[in-house]
Amino acid sequence: MSSPIRVPADELRLLSSQALEKFGLRAEDAKVAADVLVEADLLGIETHGTKRLRAYVERILRGGVNTTPTITVTEKSPALAIVDGDGALGPVVGTLALEEAMNRARAGGIAYVGCRHSNHCGALMPYGLKAVEAGYVFIGGTNASTTMPPWGGAEARIGNNPVCVAAPIEGGPHFLLDMAMSVAARGKIRAAQAAGDRIPADWAVDVQGRATTDPAAALEGFLSPMGGHKGSGLSQAIDILSGALSGAQFLSGISSWLDHPELPSNIGHFFLLLDPGRLIGKGAFSEAMTRFRNLILTTPPADPTRPVRLPGQAEQERRRQAIAHGMTLPKDLIDEIKSLAGQKS
Amino acid sequence: MSSPIRVPADELRLLSSQALEKFGLRAEDAKVAADVLVEADLLGIETHGTKRLRAYVERILRGGVNTTPTITVTEKSPALAIVDGDGALGPVVGTLALEEAMNRARAGGIAYVGCRHSNHCGALMPYGLKAVEAGYVFIGGTNASTTMPPWGGAEARIGNNPVCVAAPIEGGPHFLLDMAMSVAARGKIRAAQAAGDRIPADWAVDVQGRATTDPAAALEGFLSPMGGHKGSGLSQAIDILSGALSGAQFLSGISSWLDHPELPSNIGHFFLLLDPGRLIGKGAFSEAMTRFRNLILTTPPADPTRPVRLPGQAEQERRRQAIAHGMTLPKDLIDEIKSLAGQKS
Repeated sequence: MSSPIRVPADELRLLSSQALEKFGLRAEDAKVAADVLVEADLLGIETHGTKRLRAYVERILRGGVNTTPTITVTEKSPALAIVDGDGALGPVVGTLALEEAMNRARAGGIAYVGCRHSNHCGALMPYGLKAVEAGYVFIGGTNASTTMPPWGGAEARIGNNPVCVAAPIEGGPHFLLDMAMSVAARGKIRAAQAAGDRIPADWAVDVQGRATTDPAAALEGFLSPMGGHKGSGLSQAIDILSGALSGAQFLSGISSWLDHPELPSNIGHFFLLLDPGRLIGKGAFSEAMTRFRNLILTTPPADPTRPVRLPGQAEQERRRQAIAHGMTLPKDLIDEIKSLAGQKS
Repeated sequence: MSSPIRVPADELRLLSSQALEKFGLRAEDAKVAADVLVEADLLGIETHGTKRLRAYVERILRGGVNTTPTITVTEKSPALAIVDGDGALGPVVGTLALEEAMNRARAGGIAYVGCRHSNHCGALMPYGLKAVEAGYVFIGGTNASTTMPPWGGAEARIGNNPVCVAAPIEGGPHFLLDMAMSVAARGKIRAAQAAGDRIPADWAVDVQGRATTDPAAALEGFLSPMGGHKGSGLSQAIDILSGALSGAQFLSGISSWLDHPELPSNIGHFFLLLDPGRLIGKGAFSEAMTRFRNLILTTPPADPTRPVRLPGQAEQERRRQAIAHGMTLPKDLIDEIKSLAGQKS
């Protein structure tokens, strides 16, 4: 990795937006997508940040992403809508769908908005954060191309589908859970391989679906879902809510981004919002969540040097620091984004 | 355990209902609660079946359950309602809330019904099954008294809160995921202790919150959440949706059933229903879910003798068998229920 350099969020936003515009996105769409990626960087979720720009651009060049989509919103009831992304870049579809869900939840206290004909929408936490900042309880999910076998299987037929559940807490940090379904990420297996270590038996299975502690066999095989059948079931549940219920693709119907960058993914997402003010009153919910936060944060820790934290607390602290002092990203990445944006580094 | 005997579902339902009526429940409430418990037995979830009657009766006798509650339903918007259980037996509150949610989802395509001042509501799968049989996609959850530390903690401040996600599949089996958040149940640790075995390091922590492979230390300590911080976060998410959002208690605010059977639990549940017919049309959803089921069931298995199954498939097969041939339950249990119902065994 190259030396890290500091970059202000606004500069990164502008560069990313310029890059996407240069490759055919409309100015407003480029800005929206750049926002989602930079938000992920601010939260420290760099795997889903501006690092993805290169892959997004590659898909645009191969024709897998529609840069001038006609996105439609179809109302199914006052609280329900389907957004058809027409193959647009995922963050463009996702951001529109979230706005739509917030407007509907504001009116009726609850909303489900499903997305079809979308693409990789970035990390979910930026969407969750926007929703809780507007006062909503948020459940969001997306499906993804298949990388894991369903429990007991030996062929990848489920995605490592993430789910985000978020709730506002006055004074922060908000409750922001954003999790995928595998026990460990592939990067951790690669790190074990590089270090010559074995991996725990529950991280992955080999190509025949058998548990393995050999990182090489694991990398040829598949990631394992957390909790075995539980994570496998939860991944399928998120797929139903994201894909089957919105009319998008699901399971192995989703074409792989890596194998077929030229094909539309027809990925599905969903955003389900609830207005706690409508349910029990803003004040009562705020009081409840303040007590909730305090009960978690004052739990006696197992290791006195590592206090118990709320889901998403570390990410929100990183974001505050990054907004105050700029972000630290690898120089190579900044150079790459500048080059995509048509600037000299 | 005593010798198993066969008992028809109708007989078990009648006996259970008579027992609850004998201890003060109104006839219609007793019938509703008996239905939920017998459904769990039919599905083979015996830990949450009629085996619980004795504990339910004990709570009634200690005053922790209100046998003649005034349950109220407060509409918050056409798609939102809060059910206040007034300390009733949980399955009575849960069944009413599910009906309420189905009626509202029928009208507007989506509904959230939260419950407060409730008690242990039995297994979630019977509620999920009822919802999918009526054609809805179902998300349901409940909180519970605290048995696990949040991730990194050394004091029980989160419950092993279950969540159920269910979707109808024509011809069955339906998609019926019902899962709690711990890696393993306490019963499995007790079995390891009895057999003189160690337990895997991710099953439990000792009383100081440190991972342990010693079943005795684990039983003095706490269950561990699946996926570490993921299961811990998900348990909290279910608690927010069940407790904080409905105005019920949550986290360590819930008094323990075992330590304080005389106190109302003020447990919260939620049922969130979506009408797939409204969203993408009944036919399109049915087609999608049939394809979904087939993709999962035709996954090449890791072990050729153990085909890949859908979440809840085994339970639905047991239920079909049990309806056709009666259930097999320990004779002691039947005798106990008969005795509670005031009959000779």
